[in-house]
Amino acid sequence: MVIASFLFIISISCNSPEKVKTEAVVKSPDEDVQISFGVDDRGKPYYTVFFKEKVVIDTSYLGFEFKNHPPFEDNFKLTSIEETAFNQSWDMVWGEQKTVNNKYREIAVDLQEESETQRKLKVILRAYDDGIGFRYHFPEQEGVDTLIIMDENTEFKLTGDHTAWWIPGDWDSYEWLYNTTKITDINALEVAKTNKDLAASYIPENAVNTPVTMRTDSGLHLSFHEAALIDYAGMTLKIDKENLKLTSELVGSDRLGYKVLRELPFSTPWRTIQISENAGGLIESKMILNLNEPNKLGEVKWFKPMKYVGIWWEMHLGISTWDIGATQDMSTWTKDQASSTKHGATTENAKRYIDFAAKNNIGGVLVEGWNTGWEHWIGFEDREGVFDFVTPYPDYDLKEVVRYGKEKGVDIIMHHETSAAPRTYEQQMDTAYSLMESLGIHAVKSGYVGPIIPKGEYHHGQWMVNHYNKAMIKAAEYEVAVNAHEPIKATGLRRTYPNMISREGLRGQEFNAWASDGGNPPEHLSIVVFTRMLSGPIDFTPGIFNIKLDPHKEGNQVNTTIAHQLALYVVIYSPIQMAADLPESYEGQPAFQFIRDVAVDWDQTIVLNGEVGDFVTIARKEKGTDNWFVGSITDENEREITVQFDFLDEDKTYEAIIYRDADDAHWDENPESISINNMVVEKGDQKTFRLAPGGGLAISVKPTN
Amino acid sequence: MVIASFLFIISISCNSPEKVKTEAVVKSPDEDVQISFGVDDRGKPYYTVFFKEKVVIDTSYLGFEFKNHPPFEDNFKLTSIEETAFNQSWDMVWGEQKTVNNKYREIAVDLQEESETQRKLKVILRAYDDGIGFRYHFPEQEGVDTLIIMDENTEFKLTGDHTAWWIPGDWDSYEWLYNTTKITDINALEVAKTNKDLAASYIPENAVNTPVTMRTDSGLHLSFHEAALIDYAGMTLKIDKENLKLTSELVGSDRLGYKVLRELPFSTPWRTIQISENAGGLIESKMILNLNEPNKLGEVKWFKPMKYVGIWWEMHLGISTWDIGATQDMSTWTKDQASSTKHGATTENAKRYIDFAAKNNIGGVLVEGWNTGWEHWIGFEDREGVFDFVTPYPDYDLKEVVRYGKEKGVDIIMHHETSAAPRTYEQQMDTAYSLMESLGIHAVKSGYVGPIIPKGEYHHGQWMVNHYNKAMIKAAEYEVAVNAHEPIKATGLRRTYPNMISREGLRGQEFNAWASDGGNPPEHLSIVVFTRMLSGPIDFTPGIFNIKLDPHKEGNQVNTTIAHQLALYVVIYSPIQMAADLPESYEGQPAFQFIRDVAVDWDQTIVLNGEVGDFVTIARKEKGTDNWFVGSITDENEREITVQFDFLDEDKTYEAIIYRDADDAHWDENPESISINNMVVEKGDQKTFRLAPGGGLAISVKPTN
Repeated sequence: MVIASFLFIISISCNSPEKVKTEAVVKSPDEDVQISFGVDDRGKPYYTVFFKEKVVIDTSYLGFEFKNHPPFEDNFKLTSIEETAFNQSWDMVWGEQKTVNNKYREIAVDLQEESETQRKLKVILRAYDDGIGFRYHFPEQEGVDTLIIMDENTEFKLTGDHTAWWIPGDWDSYEWLYNTTKITDINALEVAKTNKDLAASYIPENAVNTPVTMRTDSGLHLSFHEAALIDYAGMTLKIDKENLKLTSELVGSDRLGYKVLRELPFSTPWRTIQISENAGGLIESKMILNLNEPNKLGEVKWFKPMKYVGIWWEMHLGISTWDIGATQDMSTWTKDQASSTKHGATTENAKRYIDFAAKNNIGGVLVEGWNTGWEHWIGFEDREGVFDFVTPYPDYDLKEVVRYGKEKGVDIIMHHETSAAPRTYEQQMDTAYSLMESLGIHAVKSGYVGPIIPKGEYHHGQWMVNHYNKAMIKAAEYEVAVNAHEPIKATGLRRTYPNMISREGLRGQEFNAWASDGGNPPEHLSIVVFTRMLSGPIDFTPGIFNIKLDPHKEGNQVNTTIAHQLALYVVIYSPIQMAADLPESYEGQPAFQFIRDVAVDWDQTIVLNGEVGDFVTIARKEKGTDNWFVGSITDENEREITVQFDFLDEDKTYEAIIYRDADDAHWDENPESISINNMVVEKGDQKTFRLAPGGGLAISVKPTN
Repeated sequence: MVIASFLFIISISCNSPEKVKTEAVVKSPDEDVQISFGVDDRGKPYYTVFFKEKVVIDTSYLGFEFKNHPPFEDNFKLTSIEETAFNQSWDMVWGEQKTVNNKYREIAVDLQEESETQRKLKVILRAYDDGIGFRYHFPEQEGVDTLIIMDENTEFKLTGDHTAWWIPGDWDSYEWLYNTTKITDINALEVAKTNKDLAASYIPENAVNTPVTMRTDSGLHLSFHEAALIDYAGMTLKIDKENLKLTSELVGSDRLGYKVLRELPFSTPWRTIQISENAGGLIESKMILNLNEPNKLGEVKWFKPMKYVGIWWEMHLGISTWDIGATQDMSTWTKDQASSTKHGATTENAKRYIDFAAKNNIGGVLVEGWNTGWEHWIGFEDREGVFDFVTPYPDYDLKEVVRYGKEKGVDIIMHHETSAAPRTYEQQMDTAYSLMESLGIHAVKSGYVGPIIPKGEYHHGQWMVNHYNKAMIKAAEYEVAVNAHEPIKATGLRRTYPNMISREGLRGQEFNAWASDGGNPPEHLSIVVFTRMLSGPIDFTPGIFNIKLDPHKEGNQVNTTIAHQLALYVVIYSPIQMAADLPESYEGQPAFQFIRDVAVDWDQTIVLNGEVGDFVTIARKEKGTDNWFVGSITDENEREITVQFDFLDEDKTYEAIIYRDADDAHWDENPESISINNMVVEKGDQKTFRLAPGGGLAISVKPTN
């Protein structure tokens, strides 16, 4: 599967037991990005990052605090530096592009304390053309078997009061609207107070979650994140406004009283900074993936990227319920209204979605609320032992639904709501995945709604990181692909485990159905693609056509046009994309053709233009065909977008079908007004389109010859 | 089924054995239309028609010539006049509207020769608000058992040199382009010489086929036709340019040497003249149906109006063949090219169409070329005994295809190509329909390509009229609905036998694929709807999306835009409507949504505007719903069409999806350029749309509340 186009490694090892020098430098292959690493006169390890010879990250110190051990802080010396140049291409099983080039230069620096403890630490730093990553390695050493990390103190010293797009450093949830402020105006604790809709949220200090993206005054784009988060706590970034400094703040465990416990030797996740002169470069960057280990699962032929529909939005609209007792839908929870009196996951309803999928080039049907336990879900403290993930409600014939789906060529997507009781889920995991295996179901959407049980654990702490990864690896053994909601953030593990197909981990479409603040504003996705999406695929569930949610949800609506919703199938990357609205909202809509047609797996991705929080235009080439799809979205501002069709083949003529905002479209006043045209396009053509306020543009481009 | 809303008949009988008077008058219920009937001073029966007190048909004589009998010509006296006023409503099993009002006044005039033969003749004349009809009745009488009619001499004396839309009075085919000329410029025999594409054609004199439509200088519209053509020869109208007179010319039989043979008593078909001040009134008129007998079949629950696709267009494009030997497609016949090497009607291909139909709200799949015999078809003289209508080719598993269709909810439409060998067909009819009954197939498309066998018979003569009607009645016994191609013209028999669902009988879509004259010009349908369509449903097979037939037919194309093709689903009435193009031409086309959505059965039909040969806009309300569909087409001229949404309900809001020619659309230069928009409309709204040259407009309108 992984085709190494070429592999070129140079290793220069300057191995000596004594201090070799006090600073090491590594430059990216194109030499634009430079990391300097050293220890200062007090033996404090630090690094600095330059881009085109200008400082991007000023002198930033590194350190750790431990339980039962003195901290790693100073008194270090460099004992060896190993330099490596690496250049290898690998193919994605599914992804934004067929082939990824992993090209970097690395220095691995061995440090040792000059104090009597003489503890060792290795720091590995990689310079890519599109950013930098570094990780800590704790080597085997005498006197230390296990480390209990109380704090990691990795600094990111900024060079100015950048504009930042951030969400609070919530230990339980990423489901926040992005804020656009200067660094000095980041006020996560104030924002925390506005939460009215999150079932689980804990924001202990003025920190932000990653990816957090910034733009400097000179227009350089930086995005801070981490890669390969394995057996470690998730990292938030604490804000030091005075010093314009971010410092790692690991998510902790109130139950265990520490952040991370590891036996030596071990490596931390990579701390990453993507760097790009234009905003689109952040999206095109594959550095996060490159910092992960190669594919361990092979071709994963049992999972194919797909579009799907499902019994889901109807619960958010309050039309039907998860539980058979018909008490539990989002109207009952968020609006204090009476629930519908209708269970959603019935055999009959599932078949209705299967029929719709079969007719519309949609590969999967998700059925939520199919299994017993939903009457004891959100709002209950004692959620362990409730769900068993194998017992259907009596009005849902799981086997018959799967059989009917197979007959129609439609895959059923399993649903496992753990209700944030991971111990119960782990006990049931083998049984649950065995059932799936026996039915030939190869994908599961998992959910972790609510505060984690046991109390004191948080969604993003080491204990839960390990749970999420365990579920992913166990699922792979049963040939099950995982789409986790309320997940740990993506850190590129999909490269290593391509059964990790997608995840939520952002404020999704469903907030538009009931959020007390009126839903996601028009700008939401034009920030998300430059922040959350840098970490990995998003199961955002786009494609709402009944924008005003009429007649189900008075006072709520989706705050975009329909054309914007269509564009999201291209703008957002995920190998699974939901057509989230009710089938009846799509019936009779010519614009639905775009959803039928649009691909979910790609040979190529090009960001044509974009500015964080304002707009973005992305072109993607369908895997294995000559078809292209273009998506463009704007925020609340109307704008003209020019699409330069330079990505097309020279010798071909293409039919483009343009789905654009009609002249009178507007996200609030006329959101469903869409205009569809076809035109012939060729390489080099340049076309300008108007995007309405909150609007979008979706284009399918297919060769005619 | 037939709900008589009320029935009101007044009969005034002035029965006396002596001559009562020399002229009788009957006026339409609204008194605008008047027929005067009398005998002149030589005893010659005549009639005159007035509209709003102006002469529309001047004194026109009536008469017959017989074999072995003197003609009916003069020496008649009126012996009795019976007047009737009739007002009854009846419901259509399927149709342009739910309920039809049949309201007329009638005089039935008994004539008797004053000569020694004393033969009797009755003439029944009806005045409707929308035109007139009259028929002859030959009562039982002494000395005459059987009449052999050599000629019927019914005159229609015009009042001016009207503009006429006409096709030649071909005894074998109606598949001619319409000519637009003054009466004095009608030159059917010159036109006859231009035939290069008709396998059967016989035009013995300067006559026209009916319906023939005219517009007087004062703007009055007249259309001449006949109703209830049963056991009689079809009528053409001979042109007397000098006297501006049309005279009935029955289609004859060279084999039998006469026009009609009947035993007494019998009635002729109705001779009809539809009269309307505006062109649209002709389309709205239901007079032809009202002149037929009520429904004899009841509810006909076994047939439901449907859209269909089929293995048909691919033969016209030369992609596949009817025969398994792969010699027979339209490229081989019309272009003298090599045929494809692929049989169209394979099990696999049929299933492909079934899958497409199942996905797209299309009820039926027609499969042509499924049965043995096609290698001995067009171009062969000895065509009797070739087709048996029950033996599939070995690569076509009829039962499996039907089973697969049923599984997918799709009906198979049977195909019977008689190759104009009706004796063979009549011998096989019971066997063929029995097979259909056993398979649960309830519709057949029949074909009569080529000159009739036996030689000397013509498609439109009495012998064939009887064959067509026999097939229709026999089919009804087996619960089979009939869609006849190369048929006798429609004369309203669908009222009596609602299993007569549609027919060809015009120059259809297929001419665009191969006609030597470049296909149907853009104006074609804007004449057809005011001429051919007045007789009854048309199986025109609209919906070609691959307008340029690329890459199959260089030099041929459909001479309209795609929007025009869509509009035809509303503009043309038929309870079966083909989506004629290849599935691959529809895949990915948002405009195909209109074909998915459009209804095929109606509660109401309104002609919003139109001029014969120029344009027409029709609104139809879907049966049993509140959905409306609007179709508008234009000829080669671009024009603006205003749609006045007065037909909508007062208290409703509607979503309209507009499928219109894009600004750059043109039937030749840019025929596939279509623009799709949605808008909210309410009763009273007025919207203006541009139709491209050869363009069209299709609108679906559905209530949102």
